[in-house]
Amino acid sequence: MQGLGVPLATPFDDDGDVDHDALGALAEWVTDRGVDFLVPCGSNSEAELLTADERTAVVETVADAAPDDVPVLAGTGAPGLRETLELTEGAAGAGADGALVVTPFYFDHGDDDVAAYYRAVADDAPIPVFLYSVPKYTGYTLPPAVAGDLADHPNVAGMKDSGGDLAAFQRTRARTADADFDLLVGSGGVFAPALDAGADGGVLALANVAPEVASEILDAHRSGDDDRARNLNRAAVDLNHAVTAGHGVAGLKAAMRSRGAPAGTVRSPHRPVDDDTAADLAALVDDAL
Amino acid sequence: MQGLGVPLATPFDDDGDVDHDALGALAEWVTDRGVDFLVPCGSNSEAELLTADERTAVVETVADAAPDDVPVLAGTGAPGLRETLELTEGAAGAGADGALVVTPFYFDHGDDDVAAYYRAVADDAPIPVFLYSVPKYTGYTLPPAVAGDLADHPNVAGMKDSGGDLAAFQRTRARTADADFDLLVGSGGVFAPALDAGADGGVLALANVAPEVASEILDAHRSGDDDRARNLNRAAVDLNHAVTAGHGVAGLKAAMRSRGAPAGTVRSPHRPVDDDTAADLAALVDDAL
Amino acid sequence: MQGLGVPLATPFDDDGDVDHDALGALAEWVTDRGVDFLVPCGSNSEAELLTADERTAVVETVADAAPDDVPVLAGTGAPGLRETLELTEGAAGAGADGALVVTPFYFDHGDDDVAAYYRAVADDAPIPVFLYSVPKYTGYTLPPAVAGDLADHPNVAGMKDSGGDLAAFQRTRARTADADFDLLVGSGGVFAPALDAGADGGVLALANVAPEVASEILDAHRSGDDDRARNLNRAAVDLNHAVTAGHGVAGLKAAMRSRGAPAGTVRSPHRPVDDDTAADLAALVDDAL
Amino acid sequence: MQGLGVPLATPFDDDGDVDHDALGALAEWVTDRGVDFLVPCGSNSEAELLTADERTAVVETVADAAPDDVPVLAGTGAPGLRETLELTEGAAGAGADGALVVTPFYFDHGDDDVAAYYRAVADDAPIPVFLYSVPKYTGYTLPPAVAGDLADHPNVAGMKDSGGDLAAFQRTRARTADADFDLLVGSGGVFAPALDAGADGGVLALANVAPEVASEILDAHRSGDDDRARNLNRAAVDLNHAVTAGHGVAGLKAAMRSRGAPAGTVRSPHRPVDDDTAADLAALVDDAL
Repeated sequence: MQGLGVPLATPFDDDGDVDHDALGALAEWVTDRGVDFLVPCGSNSEAELLTADERTAVVETVADAAPDDVPVLAGTGAPGLRETLELTEGAAGAGADGALVVTPFYFDHGDDDVAAYYRAVADDAPIPVFLYSVPKYTGYTLPPAVAGDLADHPNVAGMKDSGGDLAAFQRTRARTADADFDLLVGSGGVFAPALDAGADGGVLALANVAPEVASEILDAHRSGDDDRARNLNRAAVDLNHAVTAGHGVAGLKAAMRSRGAPAGTVRSPHRPVDDDTAADLAALVDDAL
Repeated sequence: MQGLGVPLATPFDDDGDVDHDALGALAEWVTDRGVDFLVPCGSNSEAELLTADERTAVVETVADAAPDDVPVLAGTGAPGLRETLELTEGAAGAGADGALVVTPFYFDHGDDDVAAYYRAVADDAPIPVFLYSVPKYTGYTLPPAVAGDLADHPNVAGMKDSGGDLAAFQRTRARTADADFDLLVGSGGVFAPALDAGADGGVLALANVAPEVASEILDAHRSGDDDRARNLNRAAVDLNHAVTAGHGVAGLKAAMRSRGAPAGTVRSPHRPVDDDTAADLAALVDDAL
Repeated sequence: MQGLGVPLATPFDDDGDVDHDALGALAEWVTDRGVDFLVPCGSNSEAELLTADERTAVVETVADAAPDDVPVLAGTGAPGLRETLELTEGAAGAGADGALVVTPFYFDHGDDDVAAYYRAVADDAPIPVFLYSVPKYTGYTLPPAVAGDLADHPNVAGMKDSGGDLAAFQRTRARTADADFDLLVGSGGVFAPALDAGADGGVLALANVAPEVASEILDAHRSGDDDRARNLNRAAVDLNHAVTAGHGVAGLKAAMRSRGAPAGTVRSPHRPVDDDTAADLAALVDDAL
Repeated sequence: MQGLGVPLATPFDDDGDVDHDALGALAEWVTDRGVDFLVPCGSNSEAELLTADERTAVVETVADAAPDDVPVLAGTGAPGLRETLELTEGAAGAGADGALVVTPFYFDHGDDDVAAYYRAVADDAPIPVFLYSVPKYTGYTLPPAVAGDLADHPNVAGMKDSGGDLAAFQRTRARTADADFDLLVGSGGVFAPALDAGADGGVLALANVAPEVASEILDAHRSGDDDRARNLNRAAVDLNHAVTAGHGVAGLKAAMRSRGAPAGTVRSPHRPVDDDTAADLAALVDDAL
């Protein structure tokens, strides 16, 4: 998994069901605009609000809609090993190329417990496993040293780091540089700096709204024009903040709608943003494009 | 739901499967020792580490094993409304008398979102709904004012408060005193003080290990001997701390084994405590009995 | 230090200077209404907003105003040992009978560092030292085991626990029961339950506003009427919450003014509450009296 | 204040007194090695463990030792306005060119309170004021929007941001780009990325240990060789982590001693690191140079 990934929003219809047509259309919409790989069932997909069956069905729709050269990294993490393995097998059967496994949440676990858990997942998973650290949702930060140790497992293939701490990101990179390990940044606000720091790519909520912008940042970096990459990134920082920490998934979907992307509604306990916020978000989108 | 409830541990066998025979035996073991109602699929049941099907099967086994006068309050909360409703219907079908619904976790939600979520759950649930606030796992504390508003919903029947904050508990009690609302405390360390403060009962991890002690506290309170209730409670505070905040579910199960209760093993990411800790816990159990 | 203490508010005049006349009058106002000991330079005294010289002057005014049978426990804690010792010597010289030393804040310290720090303070302090745990301000909770160890120091005489966690309070009590150690609760919302649990007294913000109520709770407890103590406490829980967690020192002073107590203004960065809040607080005061 | 600043460690002698000779020598040691401005009484100076008089004396020694072209930015923040202003006046009289004022700690304040506090400081301070956000010590993050508003005050001259969140840093930069506002990064692990993002400089604990390395990063950036700047920075990330989050000021001083810098001992509640840690730190220093 390299380049630009998107934690693909999950469109719901008016009954609150997954709108698979819209989901397939969204997969097309983002890949047409430069996304390199698709991440269904990430946090921004509201995966934790889906049932297990729904999660597998979402992965299947996305895998079917993905062009041949666009791999699928499916979120399959749950608080417990058993469900994580079932979700991973379901995702593999549905066509996923890799499994993105969030650090186990709800209960508090020590670093050793988390490491043992990941080894157990990787031992049994039929597809490569990517670690996923997202402290704002889990309250837990995967330490660079633990990631470095896990990188030696033959079925651990990478990590998405959504901690937003670039110093820690560099420390993880240093500990995984010699492994076959795709280190992906999960914070759109530091995409360019993370690429500078050796990221293999990013999985960015922003790419649901403005995939062209994220893709342009990546292209600038790849062509060696880091200044341009950073300038483009800077111009998108406020939008990125608004559709993540600022207003969450509800804000993300409102921003997507302002672009005409097939976003659908949010699922409870999420609730739509109000009209004023939607207007503010639409203005931020306009500014960033 | 009144009196002494137990967030019944879920015994796993050596393959990591739910050991339904042991689970039924455990339900008997605790009800023989004074427990008034059973709470399968609570936090101490490692419910978040079970699949949806396993959760319903656990509720069924417990409901079948429960004596006629012992109601079953099944944990059915998930991060999203859809799964919570499915689990609640499953639990109702499996024989549960009420649904204990934890505040939605993983994503961060505002108080208004949480209130709207609970109303939606209660509107559709086929059995009465109990609110459940457990900030140490969810990072969210249900405010007394929100609980007070929700208490007016005809299908909201009570609340388990595991926050450990007796001042907040009293504020919730004041706001729900006129409603038909069973307010249950979830912290064994403050069981007697919470009864003093108007609790209708408790749902206590401690009751997996030493149901006699918890039951004796309750009996003393009911017979008007609050001093004795508090003294008994005080004598159990260290044990209670050790099997909750101290060593978590792994410690709880080790302590249960020291009593000969059918506890089984823990499920990953939980890992068993080491032998020294198990010996310390056994000594604390001896002290408390 | 036993019975009812008050973390005496520090009145400021319109220039922001300490109003020593009002301070002396306030000391009288609360002792006339049942307070047993005075705690100048506690958190609710805005001590951290005073200069070192101001702190000593405040202690002196309060010690001078205190009736003979009303001891003075002066807050003398600072982030570092040097300043804490200087403040303690200043307080002793000004007439304080004991020093209330908050756990060292700003920097993060381990439990061993904190224990070593307290031993160093107690070794050199000319007056008895009281530990002070107030996690909402310091981010640090003094563990019961550490308090238990420190209780054996000949110059450690007690502790104020403002954590609000009654289970931890009982664990601290169990570890200090055999020492000459005054264990004081710092949360008005659990005053009666803490007395039930073996507290020697309380140091309560509430006693700035409604000393009669706090005193009546204590009297009821001492006369063996714990039910009455708890009922009185329950009736004051909302007011207590409003003048602490709800609106802070600014709310506390507004509530005091509604009673005619010489509260003065707050000091920056604190800012006065608005008129609506002041009216709400006055109504809560009326309800509680 | 532009370029490389150092939150100058405060050497203590064996009696725990400030060792002013060593302090002067340290000021020389770092300026000889490329530091552009000196920051006495920052967090890494253990300023919160000094008395008010000691703080002013420290500033004076550093101002006297500073070469003519090396300005002095003195930490003068305290929890309250009164003491902050006194410290600021003291620092100005002692020769400081600017005042670094940490967000008010201990009590919790809203954003509006903090903004009003900073305006009051800036109104009365005889020297320019720099905002200082260091959430790991204060629990408070100064929002980019608040910093942007304050930047318009004629006596607010800049900010040190030690939050480590490069996305927030960029948002602050965007909101202060048109003002005369020196935006300084306080996290050595992201020095080069912050320079890329428009920082005017950095105030780095690392510059106490390896000023040459920090200076070389800056020089590379200034000469347009950002790749080299980032590579140099990456090589120092582990050392930087070890002397800040890893082992705190005690680790910082041990690392300094391994280089022969006049670091002195730490002040209580800090305690020295053990010999093994000191050896590890010395090895990290060797690696980074």
